[in-house]
Amino acid sequence: MPIRDVIEKALAEGRTALTAPEGRELCLAYGIATPGEGLATSADEAERLAGEIGFPVVLKIVSPDILHKTDAGGVLVGLKTAEDVREGYDRILANALAYNPDAKIDGIQVQQLVGGGHEVIVGAVTDPTFGKVIAFGLGGVLVEVLKDVTFRLAPLSGDDALGMLDDIRAAEVLRGARGAEPANREALAALIERVGRLVTDIPEIVEIDLNPVFADANGAVAADVRVLIGQPQPEVSRLPREEILRQMTRIFKPRSVAVIGASAETGKIGNSVMRNLINGGYKGQIYPINPKADEIMGLKAYKSVADVPGDVDVAVFAIPAKFVAPALEEVGEKGAAGAIMIPSGFAETGNVEGQKEIVEIARRHGVRMLGPNIYGYYYTPENLCATFCTPYDVRGSVALTSQSGGIGMAILGFSRTTKMGVSAIVGVGNKADVDEDDLLTFFEQDENTKAVAMHLEDLKDGRGFVDAARRVVKEKPVIVLKAGRTAMGARAAGSHTGALAGDDKVYDDILRQAGVVRAPGLNDMLEYARALPILPAPKGENVVIITGAGGSGVLLSDAIVDAGLTLMDIPDDLDAAFRAYIPPFGAAGNPIDITGGEPPSTYENTVRLGLADERIHALVLGYWHTIVTPPMVFAELIARVVAEERAKGNVKPVVASLAGDTEVEEASEYLFEHGVVAYPYTTEKPVAVLGAKYRWARAAGLLS
Amino acid sequence: MPIRDVIEKALAEGRTALTAPEGRELCLAYGIATPGEGLATSADEAERLAGEIGFPVVLKIVSPDILHKTDAGGVLVGLKTAEDVREGYDRILANALAYNPDAKIDGIQVQQLVGGGHEVIVGAVTDPTFGKVIAFGLGGVLVEVLKDVTFRLAPLSGDDALGMLDDIRAAEVLRGARGAEPANREALAALIERVGRLVTDIPEIVEIDLNPVFADANGAVAADVRVLIGQPQPEVSRLPREEILRQMTRIFKPRSVAVIGASAETGKIGNSVMRNLINGGYKGQIYPINPKADEIMGLKAYKSVADVPGDVDVAVFAIPAKFVAPALEEVGEKGAAGAIMIPSGFAETGNVEGQKEIVEIARRHGVRMLGPNIYGYYYTPENLCATFCTPYDVRGSVALTSQSGGIGMAILGFSRTTKMGVSAIVGVGNKADVDEDDLLTFFEQDENTKAVAMHLEDLKDGRGFVDAARRVVKEKPVIVLKAGRTAMGARAAGSHTGALAGDDKVYDDILRQAGVVRAPGLNDMLEYARALPILPAPKGENVVIITGAGGSGVLLSDAIVDAGLTLMDIPDDLDAAFRAYIPPFGAAGNPIDITGGEPPSTYENTVRLGLADERIHALVLGYWHTIVTPPMVFAELIARVVAEERAKGNVKPVVASLAGDTEVEEASEYLFEHGVVAYPYTTEKPVAVLGAKYRWARAAGLLS
Repeated sequence: MPIRDVIEKALAEGRTALTAPEGRELCLAYGIATPGEGLATSADEAERLAGEIGFPVVLKIVSPDILHKTDAGGVLVGLKTAEDVREGYDRILANALAYNPDAKIDGIQVQQLVGGGHEVIVGAVTDPTFGKVIAFGLGGVLVEVLKDVTFRLAPLSGDDALGMLDDIRAAEVLRGARGAEPANREALAALIERVGRLVTDIPEIVEIDLNPVFADANGAVAADVRVLIGQPQPEVSRLPREEILRQMTRIFKPRSVAVIGASAETGKIGNSVMRNLINGGYKGQIYPINPKADEIMGLKAYKSVADVPGDVDVAVFAIPAKFVAPALEEVGEKGAAGAIMIPSGFAETGNVEGQKEIVEIARRHGVRMLGPNIYGYYYTPENLCATFCTPYDVRGSVALTSQSGGIGMAILGFSRTTKMGVSAIVGVGNKADVDEDDLLTFFEQDENTKAVAMHLEDLKDGRGFVDAARRVVKEKPVIVLKAGRTAMGARAAGSHTGALAGDDKVYDDILRQAGVVRAPGLNDMLEYARALPILPAPKGENVVIITGAGGSGVLLSDAIVDAGLTLMDIPDDLDAAFRAYIPPFGAAGNPIDITGGEPPSTYENTVRLGLADERIHALVLGYWHTIVTPPMVFAELIARVVAEERAKGNVKPVVASLAGDTEVEEASEYLFEHGVVAYPYTTEKPVAVLGAKYRWARAAGLLS
Repeated sequence: MPIRDVIEKALAEGRTALTAPEGRELCLAYGIATPGEGLATSADEAERLAGEIGFPVVLKIVSPDILHKTDAGGVLVGLKTAEDVREGYDRILANALAYNPDAKIDGIQVQQLVGGGHEVIVGAVTDPTFGKVIAFGLGGVLVEVLKDVTFRLAPLSGDDALGMLDDIRAAEVLRGARGAEPANREALAALIERVGRLVTDIPEIVEIDLNPVFADANGAVAADVRVLIGQPQPEVSRLPREEILRQMTRIFKPRSVAVIGASAETGKIGNSVMRNLINGGYKGQIYPINPKADEIMGLKAYKSVADVPGDVDVAVFAIPAKFVAPALEEVGEKGAAGAIMIPSGFAETGNVEGQKEIVEIARRHGVRMLGPNIYGYYYTPENLCATFCTPYDVRGSVALTSQSGGIGMAILGFSRTTKMGVSAIVGVGNKADVDEDDLLTFFEQDENTKAVAMHLEDLKDGRGFVDAARRVVKEKPVIVLKAGRTAMGARAAGSHTGALAGDDKVYDDILRQAGVVRAPGLNDMLEYARALPILPAPKGENVVIITGAGGSGVLLSDAIVDAGLTLMDIPDDLDAAFRAYIPPFGAAGNPIDITGGEPPSTYENTVRLGLADERIHALVLGYWHTIVTPPMVFAELIARVVAEERAKGNVKPVVASLAGDTEVEEASEYLFEHGVVAYPYTTEKPVAVLGAKYRWARAAGLLS
């Protein structure tokens, strides 16, 4: 295949870039249009080529030794006559030799001058996390100053490529804003898709820039192509899904747990782990391992895991780092599925070699290792608290994971104070082995988990994560708090984990493409985790606000726009139906302002109508504390109406903002417990949560 | 003055726009450069003018009957020869008459062709809230698609105009990004400043567009000028500041309060008001007014306020709307300073006339009216709860106001649950008379108020507000929650209050220019109100994060960037000083990661160093719950160290994010009570609050 020959020749020559004609060959092979051109090795030939291509033309030096052609005086633009071309040929040659007398000159490229329509940039980079990533943006100020660019994983479908055109802020421009000629969207998308194919087929392409591409009503032509080459990234080895699932199931539902370093001494990690396992009510076998004890907390202790009579599914490590390796060998020989590696003192303290060593041992034995440098993990359906932190047993349907122990503790405290039921809380720490995609593979099929929330600072295998997330998202929301969002944040991530955090825009676009709901901050992640499993999925985009406080209605409307939601345009008949229930000076439309002094029946009638009318898909309630309808009266009423309508099949997400004196706190809690996501003193939070649910529902294809 | 003649002639002719030559005259009079040009009434004259101006030139039809010249075929661009100009003259004339055979043709303008440098737009509009407002942006896609534009009140100083150049997202472009020629910033700012003067001097200019203005290294030339004219907005009448202050002082510190409609019957508004006044501990005279009672709650009642023996400073109205007018006449005759108009049933229910009537009565008597349609007001230093809501008595230094009753109730509930001390809570409702600027005038000099937080949906007198806010901000933060931020939100505001809400970008830029701290949502406003008075003002931009949880450090860094703060670049000597206190595998730099297992002394040493070193201006702490340093140990330690360092003169804002089990809630409260703004389960909120404090400190000129 000639294209492979081009690449291999260039690499063999020790080059890190292709020449322009080589780049053009690549484009031709993939159906990417480039301007008419040819290589001239004499002024005569240049004149002849220009005549064939058609004036005006551009002349460019072609030399493997001259990368920055303009700096070398190697480019002339807009030559209109044969005379100009002849003169230009000689001038460029002289400039180039003056710039670098030793340059090997292959000739001078004669190229059609293009420049109509829109100037866009299409490119691809090799991202350390995600591999080949395609970039698209409008040329000039928009990309270079305003960073108006969007990214996708390569390869990508034509539809994904079309989506990129709409994903930039200046998307209107390509549709012909300001009377400009619209671009041929299909042609441009096809070009993007072909670049995706090109960089996927040829992993040696480290970077490619098609800049500018001129896109007009007829098509898209790449006026300049720059290709950087190098050795391809090593392939990431992945275990088969069945294998991951088998081991993860043994880890989350173990028949037996060994505690390496179990201790009877209060304050020791090995003691906390033992207490949490026993007091948490874990029903499987617990094997304390301690060379100096015969019995710990009423259970027979073993000198070594090798001495344990039965099988060991999980070994929880509660010993100093320096003792881990030999103990892990024994755990491996015992055939355990999981090593819960609590000890710190590995890569996070600079002990990279020590971490490599234990990874090698675990891999050799087929043991999956969680950590090191973690608090452990909880799995409430099995009453499993394999952690040295405080125990937690409120069962629920969200699984949370964190890369940092501090964030894990925040998850625990938040869960306890809000009574958030969880299926699992998992620390992943240094992620030397088990990564978020392994956990997603388990949670995907775990009947106890209805939503997943993950705090992460980096991804070891971005594509593995995207693949897993895409599968899970079809069934359950995946919420991600990606720390190190900003340039400064990323720098901090670097100093903390040694991981090279990718540029946030790449993460943002690709996580969105994977259907993940990204939380902007820690508290948002926690609130989404708490609320998403209890909200039913919406079936359409029509959101209606019903409010007793006009002031809340305005703020809720603001929040609706911020959350990317749509205030329903209420049809006349529905408007009339609402009006029948509210005072004449109340406002129908949307928000529906029932006004402040209304009795419970007005809330009931309007909310029931909102739930029953099938054109409405979600309700946002604004409550205003009055003597006529006190907070708990409102809460019980709404809980009852929502339950009654759900029983009739009118299942819709309902969120509420409660404005009032402190009784609204109890009312909000009551509503939450009854499936209505409610918050006091904020109009933003309930709507943000509804927005998160919608983002998932759209990604899962439930709204179309 | 010829300019006034131009305007008056155009208005006299019933025109709503000036002709291009008239617009040019305006520009010339104000030193705004326009291209060389002249009016030709024959092809010969056009040729002569073009020769004088210099080729290439532009030809444009001049006719009061043709506003859209291009549509009429009335513009030809880039004519390079005398021949072209002659032909062009005839062609335009023919096109124009074909477009509108009845058009009066004044001639054809011959204009220098400009087009070098950057294309920018300078304009002014008459905003319903703020009056003359100047707009600036970069031409083309940036303004029209990305809405990259910034606004200021006119007139404005040259410095403010320079600030506009930096306030657009694409600001770099004018500084010469991507190798372009930088614009002459002073010349462009001067042009903007002159437009500000022009529209201020000539109120009949409803709108002016200088579009495009070409700005290059030499200067700025307005290539096209469009001026719309009309009758000027009526002047807003304002009371003298001393007069406002005198009345407001009587309202907030009254010697006597009459309750119009006082009642002994529980559940009545007039009863709630009486109870709150008495039980709240108000020490002045309370006069119940009720035609049917002799005594209410142990106080002598009067048939009418006219019967009250002493002076009445404030009358609280607790009677239906229809009885208000005659009672207000009596209150006016009695010489009261304030009428607290609780009753609803005025403009908000469509009773605009009824509202006008009571405003007229109040104005006639010099009574300042709060409301109507409000919950009343609280002023804790006087133990004054003149409201029908629940009483509130926690004294503190923030004054809060709300335009909506629902938001007022949220303020009350939030205050109670967080023990937020307040100086005042004030409902402004329909704002028929007393507006935010009146309240600011009082709070400005009120020694009991150290910060002001205002929820508002509209401003009756935008300039009055800006003037008052600018004064107050020099001494105290002014926090504003502007509801109706978004297009959808603004629509809802319209339906709620009948007020025409301005475009949010205008509000946003002008509030910022006034030095106001804008809160993005209700909960943010409440948290800023609670936290800003207890945080000392920072003296510089160097923020340092000290964290026990690396994971929190990354999230706090993200939050720092989001909040517009600056992570200090730590000098080597300071870095070494911090390193001396933390484990070798901890990270110095910034964040300073002291690592998770550290004892209290590590927190103490590092925080003390952070407070003592004068190069550091603010601290953000990340706490991670461990057995070694439990939450309350951390809280007491930090409170003590902060107090000790403050006693030594090291007064700096300190905020903290606490990650841990539920004990961190109590620890956060303790810290808050001791002057450290602390929150559990969130890394965003403490930093957002610090960011708000910084925004104020910058506006107050404390950082420079």
